[in-house]
Amino acid sequence: MTRLAVIGLGLIGGSLARALRATHGVSHIAAYDPDREQARRGIELGVIDVAAPSAAEAAHRADVVVLAVPVLHTAEAASAVKAGLAPDAILTDVGSTKVSVLEDLTRVFDGLPPRFVAAHPIAGTEKSGVAAARADLFRGHRVVLTPHASQDAQALATVRGLWESVGARVVEMDAHCHDAIFAATSHLPHVLAYAFVDMLTRLDNAADIFPNAGGGFRDFTRIASSSPEMWHDIVRANRVEVTGLLERQIGELQELLALMRDERWSELKQRFARARAARERYLPHIE
Amino acid sequence: MTRLAVIGLGLIGGSLARALRATHGVSHIAAYDPDREQARRGIELGVIDVAAPSAAEAAHRADVVVLAVPVLHTAEAASAVKAGLAPDAILTDVGSTKVSVLEDLTRVFDGLPPRFVAAHPIAGTEKSGVAAARADLFRGHRVVLTPHASQDAQALATVRGLWESVGARVVEMDAHCHDAIFAATSHLPHVLAYAFVDMLTRLDNAADIFPNAGGGFRDFTRIASSSPEMWHDIVRANRVEVTGLLERQIGELQELLALMRDERWSELKQRFARARAARERYLPHIE
Repeated sequence: MTRLAVIGLGLIGGSLARALRATHGVSHIAAYDPDREQARRGIELGVIDVAAPSAAEAAHRADVVVLAVPVLHTAEAASAVKAGLAPDAILTDVGSTKVSVLEDLTRVFDGLPPRFVAAHPIAGTEKSGVAAARADLFRGHRVVLTPHASQDAQALATVRGLWESVGARVVEMDAHCHDAIFAATSHLPHVLAYAFVDMLTRLDNAADIFPNAGGGFRDFTRIASSSPEMWHDIVRANRVEVTGLLERQIGELQELLALMRDERWSELKQRFARARAARERYLPHIE
Repeated sequence: MTRLAVIGLGLIGGSLARALRATHGVSHIAAYDPDREQARRGIELGVIDVAAPSAAEAAHRADVVVLAVPVLHTAEAASAVKAGLAPDAILTDVGSTKVSVLEDLTRVFDGLPPRFVAAHPIAGTEKSGVAAARADLFRGHRVVLTPHASQDAQALATVRGLWESVGARVVEMDAHCHDAIFAATSHLPHVLAYAFVDMLTRLDNAADIFPNAGGGFRDFTRIASSSPEMWHDIVRANRVEVTGLLERQIGELQELLALMRDERWSELKQRFARARAARERYLPHIE
């Protein structure tokens, strides 16, 4: 039976704890969160067994240590657990960017630890905090593992098994490939949604606009209710990919603006139709 | 008991027919759609009583004639019903833009008919066609009426009553104000969603991107599955407002890009936080 340590008890860390406990795959769950209130809530809600006073103490005697912190806190969290980590413990993470995480671990451990497994569960909601944690959050969702050159195969298999045990579908890919893909499917859309709502707040008729919003607006802007801290971290950690795509998106919008100004309406309609066709074609694959 | 004519039997026209029939507020529903298949399906599904061979014949002997066509077909539809319209019949529409509709009606009737009532139900889905019509589509949703200078008060009250009878909440506002507001809450978001998906389709790794999309992507792009024809019409009919906002949106994105390039991360986070706060503040009002 696995002893689990969760460093950072938010939506993802809390949901993984809940999910693994539900499978009876873990015998003991310790957690550390710099926000004492989160850890206290975690105990109260039965998500964890022990709220450790430090990351090192949470990691002490754990078989698997999960870093579930905002992605820019990865190095800090890895440094903090380093002292408490058993020699055969597996270290893994849940970060939304993978190149930055591998770089951080390399720096902290002076080379990538073979028993570190980089992981990214493609699940979440716009909610934050352990109180929003759900045992079924990962069921039917994808988890991307990005194995590295010094990867220990047994550690990789263990982490794969943990995620599969909570109902996730595990895929493996290269970390750079991961970051390029998720910049497109997730990181840029968050920037665009925040930017759209922020632009509206700056309009003179902003107070009239929001009360007249409907279902399309609600869905389009849902991700703009996500944690600004977390998404700041993700965008910053993946800034090369995100800025590249943002530039392309600005270019696309400038093209559409030119089509409208030049009254090239049938070309505009073709763009709309091409987008719709692509979304409809891929919709069955979207989780 | 009201005899209803629906010109354009799609999602909105079909849903209004279904909803009014469910209230027993109409005794007879005739419809005309240039797509014979839609009208045939309307009969088959019990949405309408009669599929008329022309818009004029559908309008003939109707008490209320609803133009439920893509907004750029308003003038054509209004011209077509003109010949069949009884002197005391009420003419109304469901268009997503209101200034263009009032201009079209002015042109067709050589001045705005007092018994024309401009209306815009804030409801819909990304689905199209009479088969997607639902009797409860408008329940709890807003309908905006934009009364004009020559407006007949009784016609306005009748149209208000029809919408209220199907569970909608009716508000009145100026047509220009309407177009500015809905450019922001609805028209621009559609352009942005189409533009985002279209940009992705043009990336080299497009085939890898879509299968890795999750729930955030699905919601953010849902409106990109809307009818390209319908949204082309709306954007074109409201091009002054939409291009103005699109320009502002491009400016906002250029500012964010500059913040990222200059590594002004705390300012980026402030923008994200401001957007989130605005969305959360107004969320209870969003339908």
